[in-house]
Amino acid sequence: MDMKATAPSERTRVRRVAERAGYEREQLNAIVDAAHVCHVAFTDERGTHCIPTACWREGDHLYIHGSNGSRLIKQAASGMQICVTITHLDGLVLARSAFHHSMNYRSAIIYGVCERVPDEQKPAVLRAFMETIARGRSREARPGNPKELAATTVLRIALDEFACKTRTGGPKDDEEDMNLPVWAGVLPLELAPRPAVPDASYDHVPDYVANWR
Amino acid sequence: MDMKATAPSERTRVRRVAERAGYEREQLNAIVDAAHVCHVAFTDERGTHCIPTACWREGDHLYIHGSNGSRLIKQAASGMQICVTITHLDGLVLARSAFHHSMNYRSAIIYGVCERVPDEQKPAVLRAFMETIARGRSREARPGNPKELAATTVLRIALDEFACKTRTGGPKDDEEDMNLPVWAGVLPLELAPRPAVPDASYDHVPDYVANWR
Repeated sequence: MDMKATAPSERTRVRRVAERAGYEREQLNAIVDAAHVCHVAFTDERGTHCIPTACWREGDHLYIHGSNGSRLIKQAASGMQICVTITHLDGLVLARSAFHHSMNYRSAIIYGVCERVPDEQKPAVLRAFMETIARGRSREARPGNPKELAATTVLRIALDEFACKTRTGGPKDDEEDMNLPVWAGVLPLELAPRPAVPDASYDHVPDYVANWR
Repeated sequence: MDMKATAPSERTRVRRVAERAGYEREQLNAIVDAAHVCHVAFTDERGTHCIPTACWREGDHLYIHGSNGSRLIKQAASGMQICVTITHLDGLVLARSAFHHSMNYRSAIIYGVCERVPDEQKPAVLRAFMETIARGRSREARPGNPKELAATTVLRIALDEFACKTRTGGPKDDEEDMNLPVWAGVLPLELAPRPAVPDASYDHVPDYVANWR
């Protein structure tokens, strides 16, 4: 992996196992584009919160959306600093020693402040979201009507201040443990498609459903 | 699902789509026990952060652990309020209208303050962690030695103040959209095992590896 040596800010500089860190946009984009969900942390008068929500990327921004009345959306739209984190778990790493057990993962942490997507841009941005879920679907589903669009807030955060952290590969045991008679290796995990569940019977099954698994 | 009508605190009361909320310990335990990873949000002088980390449950607590020097661990051990969130994505819900697209998921949000697990309890608690990953493994891998145990901080948070939020089932379209000629249904997702990757060749393959997929 091609990794930049320097973090974009002090708070994004990875300190623990720093060789797992990356600060390249290409790596970040791949992690974000593989995600359907992110976790958004923010702080209000009730404390610090961590809320999962759908996300997608277009260009240099990560987008989230929600009902105008959602606490997450209201707080994130208020101009406060938020932290958006995406994590893909890729496997359990079983080492010969308990201490060196680990996990394989790809994660990204993004800091910043959200900006509101202007009303006139909302239809295009939400269409792009739908295309990330199912290519071609934005031409098939009924588009949002003015009332639905008005009820929805779309926010975006610039992909400027971020850090990626990933682990791949097998266990890293201490030299003196290498001959212990213990199975060591990786038990991989993958977020995998399962057979589609149609809501009714359909004459036309779109490609993104037919090819789902 | 059997759901309690009342949230344990004002900040855990789910407001949006409140019928998806649950405040029962049984439901929480199932969500936590299905997770290998949680996201921990906390706030320090650099802002609000959201960090993924391994987690497990024993009884009435969720546990995390890490190097003594980890920022997450140091901050979480300091007695500040944190928020721990677990999210399982179960599928993409494709509705006839763009607006009603959704996701199926099981999520839990836990608020509280961590307490440090005393040194003398660490070996047992870390053994329990290993058993949640692979049953029987704690008797096979080399246990932590005093130096490794001393380098590791184990924290726990009581499962007292929490909310679960889940969505299951198919799309919920508006009545007037039901006859649109658009495929609707669920594209399920599951964090699935992939074939184990041994680090060497082994005469003895434990059950948790042999049965991995």
